[in-house]
Amino acid sequence: MGLIDLSMTIRPMWRWPIEKELLKDIASGDPYQVTATKMGMHAFTHIDTPLHIELGRESIETVDLERLCGSTAVIDLTPVSANQEIGADLLIKRGIHVLPGDIVLLKTCWDLSRDYTTKEYWLDAPHLNRDAAQWLSELSLKAVGFDFPQDYVIREIPDRHPSAEEMPTHDLLLRKGILLIEYLCNLDQIKTNRVDLYALPLKISGTEGACARVVAVED
Amino acid sequence: MGLIDLSMTIRPMWRWPIEKELLKDIASGDPYQVTATKMGMHAFTHIDTPLHIELGRESIETVDLERLCGSTAVIDLTPVSANQEIGADLLIKRGIHVLPGDIVLLKTCWDLSRDYTTKEYWLDAPHLNRDAAQWLSELSLKAVGFDFPQDYVIREIPDRHPSAEEMPTHDLLLRKGILLIEYLCNLDQIKTNRVDLYALPLKISGTEGACARVVAVED
Repeated sequence: MGLIDLSMTIRPMWRWPIEKELLKDIASGDPYQVTATKMGMHAFTHIDTPLHIELGRESIETVDLERLCGSTAVIDLTPVSANQEIGADLLIKRGIHVLPGDIVLLKTCWDLSRDYTTKEYWLDAPHLNRDAAQWLSELSLKAVGFDFPQDYVIREIPDRHPSAEEMPTHDLLLRKGILLIEYLCNLDQIKTNRVDLYALPLKISGTEGACARVVAVED
Repeated sequence: MGLIDLSMTIRPMWRWPIEKELLKDIASGDPYQVTATKMGMHAFTHIDTPLHIELGRESIETVDLERLCGSTAVIDLTPVSANQEIGADLLIKRGIHVLPGDIVLLKTCWDLSRDYTTKEYWLDAPHLNRDAAQWLSELSLKAVGFDFPQDYVIREIPDRHPSAEEMPTHDLLLRKGILLIEYLCNLDQIKTNRVDLYALPLKISGTEGACARVVAVED
């Protein structure tokens, strides 16, 4: 059915510690294997809701999935260079096919330039400037997805925890209620500029986002 | 787009303990909120892979999502009564539209009869007998989804941990490589006998299954 998996593999790594515990273990005589996993809800491919940056806002289990699924415009920004600042001018030029009510995917294929288990994936990343986030915020979008750490200061985490105001996509998109789909990969496999997206986060009560599995469907 | 969310809400409850920890907390002066969650990968709506019952078998991140997405036959078993044993005869009668290569959803709407946060959801549940699992195992299916605890002895967990051989769907379907999509809900909202399914588990390295978000799309 032309399914493309846009999700990172969740595994222990320096930026996102993952704890796994075998609750039941066949090798130890249990009749079946059961693993428990502890992880942050903003590790690997995941969705942010506005509660991530503002108290009293919506949490992930209340989000209607129509906002994370459906008709999606892919804005092809390739090729990008290390540390490239992406401005509104490039988005306007490459995004003429975006329609009101769309989900937008920003495609840089950054995961082909830097391995996402290395620090260079963050330290050398392309990023959106404030004008770019402002332009996106005016398009009546449901959600925006990224295959790169999209705000410049994200590279400073966890040494420093920047304010939402320093992160243009968080400040201008997320605060407005446009959901963020973060840390996608494999966008090089998308060959068209429109796909159907299914970005499905775990339905966890009360959290400000959740780990997700995300697939694109091409006609 | 006719999207129906078939996923339970993940929250602390007696059968499935969930731990939540606020790693970053706006109320305590952090610039954003981040929650870490610890939970078993077979809690609430989830996918089982054969590694759940047999060492050396496939883990969840290696599963091609084509096996969990696409054309799906809904077998309507309603109405069901408490403790009803579902046999092959009923599946044959209600499942004449099932095609080779399908995913099958068994629809009992059990979540309307018993609240899935109560023990009665398990203690009174309808269940498949061995003949029913055997019949399903011969249909060349990709996966089978259930909206009830489908093997009789599942009700004994966690007081007793039954062997896979005591659980017909695990023994006859999962062992054969037919994936199990467990603890669905809201199947009463599906009005047709064919849907497109997107059953998307977290892509966790090495685990014998994972929590999932599952949606049906009706034409």
